[in-house]
Amino acid sequence: MGSAAFELVAVGNELLIGRILDTNSHFLAKRITILGGRVSRITIIGDDVDEVASAIRDAVRRRPSFIITVGGLGPTFDDKTLEGVAEALGKSLTLNEEALEMVKEKYRRMEASTGRFIELTPPRVKMAKIPEGSKPLYNPVGTAPGVMVKHGETTIISLPGVPSEMEAIFNEAIAPLIKSISKSCFYEESLKVERVYESDLAPLIDEAMRENPMIYIKSHPRREEGKAHIELHFTTSAENIEKAKERISKAIEKISKLILSLGGKVS
Amino acid sequence: MGSAAFELVAVGNELLIGRILDTNSHFLAKRITILGGRVSRITIIGDDVDEVASAIRDAVRRRPSFIITVGGLGPTFDDKTLEGVAEALGKSLTLNEEALEMVKEKYRRMEASTGRFIELTPPRVKMAKIPEGSKPLYNPVGTAPGVMVKHGETTIISLPGVPSEMEAIFNEAIAPLIKSISKSCFYEESLKVERVYESDLAPLIDEAMRENPMIYIKSHPRREEGKAHIELHFTTSAENIEKAKERISKAIEKISKLILSLGGKVS
Repeated sequence: MGSAAFELVAVGNELLIGRILDTNSHFLAKRITILGGRVSRITIIGDDVDEVASAIRDAVRRRPSFIITVGGLGPTFDDKTLEGVAEALGKSLTLNEEALEMVKEKYRRMEASTGRFIELTPPRVKMAKIPEGSKPLYNPVGTAPGVMVKHGETTIISLPGVPSEMEAIFNEAIAPLIKSISKSCFYEESLKVERVYESDLAPLIDEAMRENPMIYIKSHPRREEGKAHIELHFTTSAENIEKAKERISKAIEKISKLILSLGGKVS
Repeated sequence: MGSAAFELVAVGNELLIGRILDTNSHFLAKRITILGGRVSRITIIGDDVDEVASAIRDAVRRRPSFIITVGGLGPTFDDKTLEGVAEALGKSLTLNEEALEMVKEKYRRMEASTGRFIELTPPRVKMAKIPEGSKPLYNPVGTAPGVMVKHGETTIISLPGVPSEMEAIFNEAIAPLIKSISKSCFYEESLKVERVYESDLAPLIDEAMRENPMIYIKSHPRREEGKAHIELHFTTSAENIEKAKERISKAIEKISKLILSLGGKVS
């Protein structure tokens, strides 16, 4: 498809013990796809420097345009993402003046609103220690800045794990970047199929995809009020939305005819 | 902790475009943890033989006790998980008689309930083609059997992606297996902390974890009705539940004292 490839790396023990559902990766996958990028892999690992470093190293080897890590940027002991990123890239963590200024500004505001003095303790300063040569990304919602660093052809971006902070930095700094480099438009449509088995649909889908190689069709068995049906989901990316829509209508027309000829119902 | 390590591999383009939230991995992570296992990594990839093969190969290299794949076992063109697993293990896919019998039985039942003849087409037979030397796992809810295959010290299990089918096979065939090999009990508890900044909690958490190396403590900034607080989440695994509970109460007692001495509130 020629769209820029993205790998996502979500960091957090709470994800691996099933305490928290990883809605952050889901948000990013959806937004990146709609902006014209392509997510090729999502990896979830624990709060461990070696695990982060190994996941980043593996991802870098697959040469995506972007690697986005989520989580582990905060002030606490178990926020180890940047240490792992630095290790993977053979860089060290250094105090970044711009990042420190962002952190200080946040605490100045909190002091002003609470009237309480807030000491710049080592855990707070930690949030401004980022891999050498990287750029902090302003966090409009929380304290820990995001981080962006180039490594060969890959840009590695680290976002905080608090959803509102992750989304705010993504929307302000990353979304415009993806739009500006994206050459393709994403479009999707669904079809409800009844009275046909999924296994009988398989060869029809196969045929429709062979005829339209730019379209991806996937069948999902569904159940509504005790009644089973198959949802057919069509997706494509094209240089403009008209072309994408046209391509999908053609495929839907074609497959609907085939389904009707089998005695199925389409809606 | 000595508990058996599990890697999860979720397969499906719909996960990478953010259309479907990966609740399957979340279900498995939670169940495995509570049964005494430890999920070390979750990888999400698309419906692509090479991607599946590469993810399985990488996972095998990390030597977990189990790799569980989810999704891509159905009759359609894009159900490629077993092809990928076979490729990673250097095996071929062969028609398994036991699996074929399971598939046939499902269609016989559907015939009996619908009164319609169901032909055993190639897409249906495909669900019984599994990697050489592997064992089919009966699917009590749907048609595609699960698959289990040993490779060195690692057992690779493939489950269908329809949540009810995945859960049913997990509960019937995998959960008893994990329980039987598990030597540890998992326990968790939470504490609500107010009037203390997360960055001031960081050194206290650090200290409590150093004193209780078997306990994992994580802080989560929360917001309830506009009011911010920190949730401290304590987890541990022990040989029995009494020991796990005792260990966590001690840590909670210790950290509560430290928080109170900072003027914080604990509940």
